[in-house]
Amino acid sequence: MRFSKIVEQLDIAEASSLESCPELNPDIVGVSSVQDSVPETISYIEGKKFAPYIEQTTNAALILPMDPSLQTQATERGLAWVSTPEPRLGFARAIALFYQPFCLAPGIHPTAIIHPTATIGANVAIGPYVVIHAGANIGDHVCIHPQVVVYPEAQVGASTTLHASCIIHERAQLGQHCVIHAGAVIGSEGFGVVPTAQGCEKMHQSGIVIREDLVEVGCNAAIDRPAVGETRIGRNSKLDNLVHVAHNCQLADNCILAAQVGLAGGVALESLVVLGGQVGVANNAKIGKGAQAGSKAGLHSNVPAGSVMMGTPASPYRTYLKSSAIYNRLPEMHRTLKQLQKQVADLEQQLVQLEQTPQ
Amino acid sequence: MRFSKIVEQLDIAEASSLESCPELNPDIVGVSSVQDSVPETISYIEGKKFAPYIEQTTNAALILPMDPSLQTQATERGLAWVSTPEPRLGFARAIALFYQPFCLAPGIHPTAIIHPTATIGANVAIGPYVVIHAGANIGDHVCIHPQVVVYPEAQVGASTTLHASCIIHERAQLGQHCVIHAGAVIGSEGFGVVPTAQGCEKMHQSGIVIREDLVEVGCNAAIDRPAVGETRIGRNSKLDNLVHVAHNCQLADNCILAAQVGLAGGVALESLVVLGGQVGVANNAKIGKGAQAGSKAGLHSNVPAGSVMMGTPASPYRTYLKSSAIYNRLPEMHRTLKQLQKQVADLEQQLVQLEQTPQ
Amino acid sequence: MRFSKIVEQLDIAEASSLESCPELNPDIVGVSSVQDSVPETISYIEGKKFAPYIEQTTNAALILPMDPSLQTQATERGLAWVSTPEPRLGFARAIALFYQPFCLAPGIHPTAIIHPTATIGANVAIGPYVVIHAGANIGDHVCIHPQVVVYPEAQVGASTTLHASCIIHERAQLGQHCVIHAGAVIGSEGFGVVPTAQGCEKMHQSGIVIREDLVEVGCNAAIDRPAVGETRIGRNSKLDNLVHVAHNCQLADNCILAAQVGLAGGVALESLVVLGGQVGVANNAKIGKGAQAGSKAGLHSNVPAGSVMMGTPASPYRTYLKSSAIYNRLPEMHRTLKQLQKQVADLEQQLVQLEQTPQ
Repeated sequence: MRFSKIVEQLDIAEASSLESCPELNPDIVGVSSVQDSVPETISYIEGKKFAPYIEQTTNAALILPMDPSLQTQATERGLAWVSTPEPRLGFARAIALFYQPFCLAPGIHPTAIIHPTATIGANVAIGPYVVIHAGANIGDHVCIHPQVVVYPEAQVGASTTLHASCIIHERAQLGQHCVIHAGAVIGSEGFGVVPTAQGCEKMHQSGIVIREDLVEVGCNAAIDRPAVGETRIGRNSKLDNLVHVAHNCQLADNCILAAQVGLAGGVALESLVVLGGQVGVANNAKIGKGAQAGSKAGLHSNVPAGSVMMGTPASPYRTYLKSSAIYNRLPEMHRTLKQLQKQVADLEQQLVQLEQTPQ
Repeated sequence: MRFSKIVEQLDIAEASSLESCPELNPDIVGVSSVQDSVPETISYIEGKKFAPYIEQTTNAALILPMDPSLQTQATERGLAWVSTPEPRLGFARAIALFYQPFCLAPGIHPTAIIHPTATIGANVAIGPYVVIHAGANIGDHVCIHPQVVVYPEAQVGASTTLHASCIIHERAQLGQHCVIHAGAVIGSEGFGVVPTAQGCEKMHQSGIVIREDLVEVGCNAAIDRPAVGETRIGRNSKLDNLVHVAHNCQLADNCILAAQVGLAGGVALESLVVLGGQVGVANNAKIGKGAQAGSKAGLHSNVPAGSVMMGTPASPYRTYLKSSAIYNRLPEMHRTLKQLQKQVADLEQQLVQLEQTPQ
Repeated sequence: MRFSKIVEQLDIAEASSLESCPELNPDIVGVSSVQDSVPETISYIEGKKFAPYIEQTTNAALILPMDPSLQTQATERGLAWVSTPEPRLGFARAIALFYQPFCLAPGIHPTAIIHPTATIGANVAIGPYVVIHAGANIGDHVCIHPQVVVYPEAQVGASTTLHASCIIHERAQLGQHCVIHAGAVIGSEGFGVVPTAQGCEKMHQSGIVIREDLVEVGCNAAIDRPAVGETRIGRNSKLDNLVHVAHNCQLADNCILAAQVGLAGGVALESLVVLGGQVGVANNAKIGKGAQAGSKAGLHSNVPAGSVMMGTPASPYRTYLKSSAIYNRLPEMHRTLKQLQKQVADLEQQLVQLEQTPQ
């Protein structure tokens, strides 16, 4: 594909070498990273600190930020380039031009076992050994990989992909254009344990999980249904591998949960919340719009919109950085304190003596 | 179902509106939460702080704590109510009156592959594409969902449910009335790595996993078997999603492990231990009866019975709260310390001068 | 098996009771732990602190460290023994003499669905309901348990074992003699989310996962493929259950990752790195050769070779121990500091008065 064609299709380009050197229009055969570049491919650079890679890359073209010095550098090395305020987004789109994700061929494999009361849309791909229970509803263009089990009355929206071995529990509702990765479990029983004096008694989980459109759930993640009501994952939210979402959580749209995040029961995330890897959020905590938490943070209570939190218990970013910088000086502080106590005691004694000195 | 009938069946009620207003006996069609109430259903309230919900709920009946003011409030709103010291337990029982968890119909699906030497009890439900290996033993009334694999010589006790895609490894022994959720792996090889100067050498895991009656294991959890001996999960213990239990762990009865808890090799939990989400327990630590650990705690050594621990390394609850409250004042403390050092040095110098002053 | 035969086969023994008591050559029928010993079996002891077990064990033989006092103690109790600098390694080898891990019988089960363009090596065992997609390559002597799915063009090296329900994604390359435990997912899509002002946009993950020889991956673990390039797990590296390895990570040989470890994108581990349970490593951090991190540590930046790190953010072992020892004295330090401030203020005032005193 000609570089000029790629520039057109990125749909975010604001400048390119085609303007100054229209003859610099190489044929691009794929994508690669600039650190590990492959000839005749396009890559991207996020900012000045990657400038040294421009000197050594074997890429034929680069997606650059809006930076004249990087542009000049690329031109001088004979590379085609295109600039955009969002080079990483440009690269994502470039990959999509060359990469076709694997999809099952449409059709229902003869070994798929589909209950006669299940409804199956048009143009679906249902792989071998899939089991779809009574009353389930599978939308148009859905792709279901092998070994998936859809429990009774679950709904899978149009154009959604279920990867191998994922499990959709009873009554769960998945939106359109969702991707559930291998081994993920959606709508499993919430952890309904009622401690009593005689040990724990089970609380049945009669609620449902609702996942809106464009949601993605990582491998071996688990999203529980509640005792009553619903657990909801908002539109375009993305959950990475091994994430746990407990019963009654309410995620708004466009939330990002990195791998191994755990949300306890009843957590509410407003839109655009970003949680780093291994973050934990305690029961019923409300996390405000656009708030972020650094990896491993423990959010034990509500977090205001727009905050950036770190540590356990979590503090605002700046506070945390200051405190954790001092943390390793605690032994020194402790020694200083002991020393000061001694000095002050000495001073006090000297002062007493001075005062008693006959003048 | 009439409210009076529900009250009878809860088996924990100590007072109800039927005593004062016997005519208040609505027909109840289901359960819902008081925050998100549905007309003609029953809900519950745990304590006074939920009192405002009584004013606005559309529920027809409520399960209340033993609190006369809440009772009066409910009566004034025309709601039927029943009081009990354990409203949440009452609600769990109310759900069980209305909700029938999905169960496979009894019978063995023709696609299930069962080795001729496996023993299968009476009245089992074995779904499509289940594989049961040689010498395995499946008790009466067991329900095995699709895609489950039972390795050789594993035993599954009567009335136990294995959800879709869970894996029971060789020689594992599951008790009666257990529930293994989707994707969980029981009896997998412990992490038998022996570091040597040449890298790591494998230690085979020849032991077994024993899970007593009424145990529940969450989705995609993993319980390992040991090199020799056994890993044991005690009666009525409940493990949430994505929990890891390493080789040789010994859990007594009625332990509760929230999601993403990790137990290293040889950990021993006495009965009634409760571990919050993402808690980790180090090799061979012994956690005493009824001890609790807050979410994200790291238990690096033994914990006495009845303790409540928080933080990493974990400290008793009160100590932790005090220390973590001060943590964010570290920068201020550091500044104060520097300031004091300066003041004391000045004082010392002044004192020297004073002493040298000819009198 | 005669004890003398075992000693021969351990291949690491440096001394044994056979030299002083050649008649002490019991028949050994298996292995057990010394705490939970079984008659006629062999066990091991790692060091002096386990000496009390020698007094009470019912084992017939022990693998001891190079310690004359333990040897004498064992001889006096009539136990056969063999000494080696690495008793645990010896025990691993003893287990291997008695324990035969379960393996499927060679052959391809008639229910396995193998695409005609897939290549299958000699002497493989492929269980029921396995699905192998187009262009996949399965080496000689590979054992594939039930319900495994191998996506298109994945390669599985000779003598590798894939346990039940594990998923090998498109183009992933597994080396020889690897073990992938139940439910693990190899080569899944990296978490390719590009945040934009309008929410997140997906970055396709067109790269591959390469796992070299002798790699082991625990149950329900997930190893992601990158957008471009490769994620690589080096020779003889061992990953425990529920580990997450993000896109573009590069693990050298002989790394050990305990359960629930999470590596963010682009992390590089040099050889012989050991990460404890629940450790997290941040984006692009480089962890030097032989470095270790204690369980729950958060490695937010590069770590030099040979370091031992603990805490979040991680510090060198000694620093961490000192600081965390002081942590719980923070409230006391805070009080002391307040007290000192008061004392110093008093002193300053007294000094002013003294200076003003007419002499």
